[in-house]
Amino acid sequence: MITRENTLPVMIGPLTMGHSHDVLIQSMTNTKTTDYNATIYQINELAKAGAHLVRLAIPDKKSLEYLSEIVKQSTVPLVADIHFDHKLALGAIDAGIAKIRLNPGNIGSQDKVKEVLLAAKKKNIAIRIGVNTGSIGESQNKVDKAMQLMDEYLSFFESCQFQNTVVSLKSSDINTTITMNERFAMKYKYPLHLGITEAGFGQQAIVKSAIGIGAILLKGLGNTIRVSLTGDPVQEIHAASSILKALGINASGVNIISCPTCARTDINVEKLAREIELKTKDIKEKITIAVMGCVVNGPGEAMEADFGISGGKECGVIFAKGKIIKKVPEDQLVESLLDIIKEKK
Amino acid sequence: MITRENTLPVMIGPLTMGHSHDVLIQSMTNTKTTDYNATIYQINELAKAGAHLVRLAIPDKKSLEYLSEIVKQSTVPLVADIHFDHKLALGAIDAGIAKIRLNPGNIGSQDKVKEVLLAAKKKNIAIRIGVNTGSIGESQNKVDKAMQLMDEYLSFFESCQFQNTVVSLKSSDINTTITMNERFAMKYKYPLHLGITEAGFGQQAIVKSAIGIGAILLKGLGNTIRVSLTGDPVQEIHAASSILKALGINASGVNIISCPTCARTDINVEKLAREIELKTKDIKEKITIAVMGCVVNGPGEAMEADFGISGGKECGVIFAKGKIIKKVPEDQLVESLLDIIKEKK
Repeated sequence: MITRENTLPVMIGPLTMGHSHDVLIQSMTNTKTTDYNATIYQINELAKAGAHLVRLAIPDKKSLEYLSEIVKQSTVPLVADIHFDHKLALGAIDAGIAKIRLNPGNIGSQDKVKEVLLAAKKKNIAIRIGVNTGSIGESQNKVDKAMQLMDEYLSFFESCQFQNTVVSLKSSDINTTITMNERFAMKYKYPLHLGITEAGFGQQAIVKSAIGIGAILLKGLGNTIRVSLTGDPVQEIHAASSILKALGINASGVNIISCPTCARTDINVEKLAREIELKTKDIKEKITIAVMGCVVNGPGEAMEADFGISGGKECGVIFAKGKIIKKVPEDQLVESLLDIIKEKK
Repeated sequence: MITRENTLPVMIGPLTMGHSHDVLIQSMTNTKTTDYNATIYQINELAKAGAHLVRLAIPDKKSLEYLSEIVKQSTVPLVADIHFDHKLALGAIDAGIAKIRLNPGNIGSQDKVKEVLLAAKKKNIAIRIGVNTGSIGESQNKVDKAMQLMDEYLSFFESCQFQNTVVSLKSSDINTTITMNERFAMKYKYPLHLGITEAGFGQQAIVKSAIGIGAILLKGLGNTIRVSLTGDPVQEIHAASSILKALGINASGVNIISCPTCARTDINVEKLAREIELKTKDIKEKITIAVMGCVVNGPGEAMEADFGISGGKECGVIFAKGKIIKKVPEDQLVESLLDIIKEKK
């Protein structure tokens, strides 16, 4: 199991990020907030898929128009993504947003940043300081430069007595992202927002994000994650959930392990695994089910799981809590397994 | 960049695994070798997809029947997966297999293992010793037990002057797998075969494998990888390739980074990125192309890439080697970018 570092807690509406709390999953809409219906629809789709919070880009004044109504309709806390114009941040705070994402480096002046901090503080709103190596300009050592910028921003935030702060240090390079987050966590206790920027699209992007975000979570760091994928943001939530599930973080529900099958396999492992996944999806307890094709790795892995099937020729054996329960024909395996889970879990 | 640990080199047919060589991608057929045509077809599909070597399960004597013919027809070196019966290993060696996967713990006696080692040595065949926590039985500390078994196996192999050895230490748990591989590499110089056993199927399994295998590769360890996925093994090769590409290992060809799009995006980033991927797939040089939707992260990320597009309203800017080259309408972006890549790469 991963031992997670405790950070300072940060309040985001009704949620607490950091400290010993679950890792929160977030995504970002790609609708314009001026399109009220499309934005509400996408927020709800993201929430249904498992997003704990949703970010909206507020690129201009007209994007603020329906924001307070969107906040009211949303079932999850919303984050406003602000660049260049601090008045947009103030407008978003007025509209009832729960968190602001800010890059203090492009807001213009410390006075303007301070105005945002004071307004946020009054309403107990969180601010994420986001520094991406992609937007820090030319530099010999981008990691050093990013860390130095973050030091400056945080010392300014602290001088304004603002501590409801979340930090992100991102890059499109995995190693750079890991290094920055490790260095940060050695010095500060603020919650970390993890992501690999501009990962791309499809499986390649999911794999890249999984490796990068996964490597940081394995070090016990990270309090919220966002998988950036070009395309429908709902897939970001599925990918983020897969990352947390693979690492046993926020774990509840069924974890199915199944073998890749080979010439030794005499039962249809894939069909069995998919059927079991479908039929156990409402189980909330944390249990592991092994679906194994043969006698080589089968019994061992099935013994390690809470429940398991190990296949033979047109039949299989059902395991529970390390013991063989019974041998049944292949077509009765799923039903027998489900009965035994119901009985023993 | 990842600094990869040099290991001993191990010869697998015409390939060298380990030392400073590329990380080899492998998969395993799920056909019976008694079905000659299906097996040859699957081996070729795997090789076409990018497999450097392919493993076949040899569960019984009749599986050896067409093996020498399969070896002759295969375009990649083949590995025989042997359990329980050392005569199957001897038969596979006779049939011309390039590598054997063996768990010395289930072969019966040291004499039988020694017979395999001598036969393999005579033909310069590699052997992978595979220890999975799932098959070491009950134990207080499965990691210690696996490491102790591996010590015993290796000391026996070395006492037989056999050193053409590859090692795998696997588990269905990511942390356990990482720990075993790290501990092994602190003590030995044999090449490591990486994988997460019984990862499951679909995106969840790909994510789990990516995190686990990725974490070990990030430590500079690992000389061959196999992503275990329930289903068509060709998808294992795609997933393995994605892992190596995400980490810039074995790198050649085009790496596309693209932003996740948001309300600030005025160009169709996904369509552009997919079109560029398709039209640059034959480029063998290692280049990075950034496809960015807006002016916030766009110019910075595009500057870090070798080539890039950063979108505006119905138009975009093309970057090359850190400099803006020109501004063109959206419908000419791809063509202009390809012209510039051709000219400057």
